Amino acid sequence: MAEASHKPVPLLKDELDIVIPTIRNLDFLEMWRPFFQPYHLIIVQDGDPSKVIKVPEGFDYELYNRNDINRILGPKASCISFKDSACRCFGYMVSKKKYIYTIDDDCFVAKDPSGHDINALEQHIKNLLSSSTPYFFNTLYDPYREGADFVRGYPFSLREGVPTAVSHGLWLNIPDYDAPTQLVKPRERNTRYVDAVLTIPKGTLFPMCGMNLAFDRELIGPAMYFGLMGDGQPIGRYDDMWAGWCVKVITDHLGLGVKTGLPYIWHSKASNPFVNLKKEYKGIFWQEDIIPFFQNVTLPKDCTSVQKCYIELSKQVKEKLGPIDPYFTKLADAMVTWIEAWDELNTPSE
Amino acid sequence: MAEASHKPVPLLKDELDIVIPTIRNLDFLEMWRPFFQPYHLIIVQDGDPSKVIKVPEGFDYELYNRNDINRILGPKASCISFKDSACRCFGYMVSKKKYIYTIDDDCFVAKDPSGHDINALEQHIKNLLSSSTPYFFNTLYDPYREGADFVRGYPFSLREGVPTAVSHGLWLNIPDYDAPTQLVKPRERNTRYVDAVLTIPKGTLFPMCGMNLAFDRELIGPAMYFGLMGDGQPIGRYDDMWAGWCVKVITDHLGLGVKTGLPYIWHSKASNPFVNLKKEYKGIFWQEDIIPFFQNVTLPKDCTSVQKCYIELSKQVKEKLGPIDPYFTKLADAMVTWIEAWDELNTPSE
Repeated sequence: MAEASHKPVPLLKDELDIVIPTIRNLDFLEMWRPFFQPYHLIIVQDGDPSKVIKVPEGFDYELYNRNDINRILGPKASCISFKDSACRCFGYMVSKKKYIYTIDDDCFVAKDPSGHDINALEQHIKNLLSSSTPYFFNTLYDPYREGADFVRGYPFSLREGVPTAVSHGLWLNIPDYDAPTQLVKPRERNTRYVDAVLTIPKGTLFPMCGMNLAFDRELIGPAMYFGLMGDGQPIGRYDDMWAGWCVKVITDHLGLGVKTGLPYIWHSKASNPFVNLKKEYKGIFWQEDIIPFFQNVTLPKDCTSVQKCYIELSKQVKEKLGPIDPYFTKLADAMVTWIEAWDELNTPSE
Repeated sequence: MAEASHKPVPLLKDELDIVIPTIRNLDFLEMWRPFFQPYHLIIVQDGDPSKVIKVPEGFDYELYNRNDINRILGPKASCISFKDSACRCFGYMVSKKKYIYTIDDDCFVAKDPSGHDINALEQHIKNLLSSSTPYFFNTLYDPYREGADFVRGYPFSLREGVPTAVSHGLWLNIPDYDAPTQLVKPRERNTRYVDAVLTIPKGTLFPMCGMNLAFDRELIGPAMYFGLMGDGQPIGRYDDMWAGWCVKVITDHLGLGVKTGLPYIWHSKASNPFVNLKKEYKGIFWQEDIIPFFQNVTLPKDCTSVQKCYIELSKQVKEKLGPIDPYFTKLADAMVTWIEAWDELNTPSE
């Protein structure tokens, strides 16, 4: 039987960092105070480093601006994006904790259908601490939730599940649409609260959004690279997507799980669709080749660590996607630099 | 953009049959009257053919008992199970309609969270008439539902989707658990209403339950064989599972979709777990070999119709599962008989 998760959820306050990329004062933290105050925050300041970011009183945090990133990484700082929220992955690298939760500064506390504030972090922790079931679909969704289990016909040998590496949360109010969809449906709001968590099956890719995302650094951290976006790059708004595709093929290869669904946050405002279109249009085009590439990637058996998988993936990116545009060659090199920088700041996991 | 489904749902009353396997009077239809009365019912009477099954007044139906099945199919009647709800698939075969909805006679109308009666059939029709998205996961679930769409990062080339062959509905109250889970959690009730429909990704198997199930006969009918169960057979309660595994590999091969989630029905009572254990125990054991078999099945390119796929599958069942138990050789033969009988009663689709 699946173990019902009606035990109190551990806070993990000494094992989890909250990573926030920002260009403005962090007033949004006021609303999160009851849930975030016990945790350590890693704030990655994007844009002008001379600007002072105000953090509400009482939060324990460290803040890195571009000067800090350049100082800490030296020439390897080239792998960290500038003027794009992709810079957040620097926070993943400098954290020393087992778990990361990352959230955008335009995301607020959502309410569940009974009107209660949703403790998003608690739900992410639940998701990460219970197993995933990537090898067979359970029609009653997460079998480890209270009141649920594996249904008739679910093989018993698969009921232990696999460790969960990623918990992907969703958004009420402003949905995470691309620019064309934003333009066509400017008034669409997500009001549907779907009370489910589920494992994304092995072999299936998904669009991972970085707005409300938690992961186990020890299991998958080095693959959570948000790529080269923003200043000086031909695309934006594909940072989290890129990370998601890499993460999914690597978790599939290593026998780890990715969950999506609860928790919801309240996404307060849509970004400008015209600006977004400019950032996205090459991605929309390139994606038609990138997806088949990731769907067909296979990693050799001797790739037994995330780092090894990621380096192998960078080689295949260079070889297979490089011909599409010189950007991918640059990105493949940045993937290697990222791993070198990661290993410099962290004891390699192998 | 995905087309929102806020148009009125077509009733399809001349294109859909409701198939009900039963051994008792169909009083349960009273509760379904507002939703089912416009449709034609195909009642498959299991067990003693001399028993008279009462059908509430005002329903349009045809009823087949074992004598009818034997008369219509002759020696081929051997492929239709007796003393097991697997006999329902005879109803799929004699229907002349494009769509089938099948429901158990212990399933009642459920209520949604706002207290309204759920028109299960209407939701199944919505599911079947909108596309499926098996090649990439959409984190906001069915992108064709009103208020939803494809999220950022979903490849545009995949947004048309593929035709939906199967709509798998769920159950409130008594969940569809196997005997061991029933025994361990006798009091567990499903009270969680998950407001979602989603496509089961390509390459992923699922436990298909026959309690609340709709499908497109023209697209997948000949694969909806519920196998040999019950009287004279070593197992029971794997009829719908067997059909589901066969259906999923064939829909994957043919580029069709399978949806699961809404609608819910109210499943009124649990069957006896001790009786179920007796029926299931060989299945629980065999399943550990059956699942890897189905996970690894590949169908050759020249299998371009459901019938061809199914005959090919029967050969592989005989070859790969036959060595486990003589039952699978018998089942593989019955799969062929089923297709012969189907084609006798239906114009072959090729």
